[in-house]
Amino acid sequence: MALIVQKYGGTSVGSIERIEIVAQHIKETKEKGNKIVAIVSAMAGETDKLINLAKKLSKRPTEREMDLLLSSGERISSALVAIKLNELGVKAVAMTGRQCGIVTDDVHTKARIKTINAKDIMEYIEDDYVVIVAGFQGIGENSGDVTTLGRGGSDTTAVAIAAALKADVCEIYTDVDGIYTADPRIVKNARKLDKISYSEMMELASLGAKVLQIRSVEFGMKYNVPIMVLSSFTFNKGTLVAKEDKDMEKILVSGVAQDKNQARLKINNVKDEPGIAAKIFNTIAENNINVDVIVQNVSDDGRFTDISFTVTKDEADKAYDLLNRLSKEIDAGEVSINRDVAKVSIVGVGMRSHPGVAAKMFDALAKEGVNIRAISTSEIKVSCIIDEKYTELAVRTLHEAFELDKE
Amino acid sequence: MALIVQKYGGTSVGSIERIEIVAQHIKETKEKGNKIVAIVSAMAGETDKLINLAKKLSKRPTEREMDLLLSSGERISSALVAIKLNELGVKAVAMTGRQCGIVTDDVHTKARIKTINAKDIMEYIEDDYVVIVAGFQGIGENSGDVTTLGRGGSDTTAVAIAAALKADVCEIYTDVDGIYTADPRIVKNARKLDKISYSEMMELASLGAKVLQIRSVEFGMKYNVPIMVLSSFTFNKGTLVAKEDKDMEKILVSGVAQDKNQARLKINNVKDEPGIAAKIFNTIAENNINVDVIVQNVSDDGRFTDISFTVTKDEADKAYDLLNRLSKEIDAGEVSINRDVAKVSIVGVGMRSHPGVAAKMFDALAKEGVNIRAISTSEIKVSCIIDEKYTELAVRTLHEAFELDKE
Repeated sequence: MALIVQKYGGTSVGSIERIEIVAQHIKETKEKGNKIVAIVSAMAGETDKLINLAKKLSKRPTEREMDLLLSSGERISSALVAIKLNELGVKAVAMTGRQCGIVTDDVHTKARIKTINAKDIMEYIEDDYVVIVAGFQGIGENSGDVTTLGRGGSDTTAVAIAAALKADVCEIYTDVDGIYTADPRIVKNARKLDKISYSEMMELASLGAKVLQIRSVEFGMKYNVPIMVLSSFTFNKGTLVAKEDKDMEKILVSGVAQDKNQARLKINNVKDEPGIAAKIFNTIAENNINVDVIVQNVSDDGRFTDISFTVTKDEADKAYDLLNRLSKEIDAGEVSINRDVAKVSIVGVGMRSHPGVAAKMFDALAKEGVNIRAISTSEIKVSCIIDEKYTELAVRTLHEAFELDKE
Repeated sequence: MALIVQKYGGTSVGSIERIEIVAQHIKETKEKGNKIVAIVSAMAGETDKLINLAKKLSKRPTEREMDLLLSSGERISSALVAIKLNELGVKAVAMTGRQCGIVTDDVHTKARIKTINAKDIMEYIEDDYVVIVAGFQGIGENSGDVTTLGRGGSDTTAVAIAAALKADVCEIYTDVDGIYTADPRIVKNARKLDKISYSEMMELASLGAKVLQIRSVEFGMKYNVPIMVLSSFTFNKGTLVAKEDKDMEKILVSGVAQDKNQARLKINNVKDEPGIAAKIFNTIAENNINVDVIVQNVSDDGRFTDISFTVTKDEADKAYDLLNRLSKEIDAGEVSINRDVAKVSIVGVGMRSHPGVAAKMFDALAKEGVNIRAISTSEIKVSCIIDEKYTELAVRTLHEAFELDKE
């Protein structure tokens, strides 16, 4: 007998039929003697529908009200799943973020969970109820207002509740059946991983793999919650995200990720003086633009340098305008923009103890004629900015070079 | 400057365009120097849509989860109206039943408001905000669960909040522009009333007029909140529901109401002994069937009598089955049922001081050949059960007999 926290995403509860399948699966898991808490997302399409209503009324809807609006979707699906379970003869209750004691900071639309008072959930579980939780939401610690945790926030609700309940496992049911060595739509022989470490998963999530919200993996790592990613369509064994172990370290590279949502900006002839780069990046940050890969060329004469960096494509115009204004202010040169770039990355905890992985990556790309525009590395990943048109070629090349199709 | 509580029904906020009109009207009322709290219903059709989803999943959805499900509709519309107001440059916040401090009993789907802690609403009003309240909902006093107040519950939310805030008026915006002397679809020259007393309004509401939830009128009477019923389509002056005054007492009859949702049951040859009638009506009540007009014939020989009463059409079959079982138990005679009956009523506080009103009613109906099957009276109303086919004729006849088209 185990205490299992499950999370069902929007497509998993996207219709009456899907809700019936999910309820049936919960029933079967319960009948094996397990205790179940299931977190649900809004039915697929509902959140977008609500956003569209708000957008029709206002170009910039107030965030406090957006949270109240969007949190409704998860309340609806949680009630529906609980209703179906009761119909199936399984005692079930639906609970909102507030009722689950989920207290967040007061930052609307991207709140962070501060504490969870799981007393009421525990009481229901002890009374043999299945608890269905409306994901993605909490209550602001000072305001008492409804807050939401950002896109994918139900993942974080699930892992945080699993941590609070000291659950045996947190199962994330989604429309893919696990974490792959690469996007299977690009690499035909991409392989499903049995296991991946929290830190690798975090890198993959931030590099463009959209399976889990990054914060949910952070929570999992912090509280050591084993997370199983699996499909609510096949219910096959998925991928376990867990603490690093000896086996994992033997593997140089666990996966390849790509992100086409990149644009590269360059500002020429920047004075090579202390404080100038800081001024540039402070200005960018103050305008809430996230900067990714930064390259500062070594200046030939120690007087002028070029600085380039990438941002997401949708923020490229805003960043370009900012840089042009800034360039005049700091007496720098021309600003250029390239929207046709992408980022390919390899991730693996084994890199830490095996030098030469980055070199092997550059070599493989070079052999295929893929030019590298910029490089960024961490302890367990290497990212290259390349021309967008080479993205698929690069991903396939790296997948083959590191033999990721083989266990 | 006044503190005005407004309530907008489902059709009033039924589309993006309707929400824009409502927001504009709130803005204009605010700009005249008033403080505004507006209660909103779910967008027209939303509640039915959610009920249908639940019905597809379960023949008898759990009431606790239905409340969570259905309360979402009002949260959505309150957020949308507040978003539009902010877009129009009017500071506005949306608040849920919980945030408005609305505490109810723990009876799901038809909870009753116990207390309102209006501290947070007051703070927002004092900070010059318009407060948009999600109607129809509260929090159970012991459970902490979301509760709803039954169909039309947003009316009660509005009047209760008006009472708690000691508002100057509670304006109920709906798709009709006031209370009429009769249903204008039946009586062409029906007249809009300028004013009606709480007690008359309560009688009309319970007699089939669906403009206001009865409980909201009870609240209005108890806390002396002037209620104005008016249209969100024309914004013309509507009907004021208020404390009885001298003028009202001069009017014999204020309005005529009809209710076709009636069926008449009769049980023959009941022993005329103490306790037998009580046994019948206790059994009916224990099965949650509401009994309306009751007639017990005077027995000729003091040994046997007939008892008949009306129930709503949808409860008629259930009542019929019960009576048949009961008849055997108490050794009574045949049970009969008539589904083709209706109730027509006249209402007016003036009746109290003017005898002869009932006689005039019976006389008018008799002249048109409308047979009266049963009669029920209160201090301020007379109801007659008649054959359903005569309903419209009876309403028109009474409207003319009491000259309700004239002021």
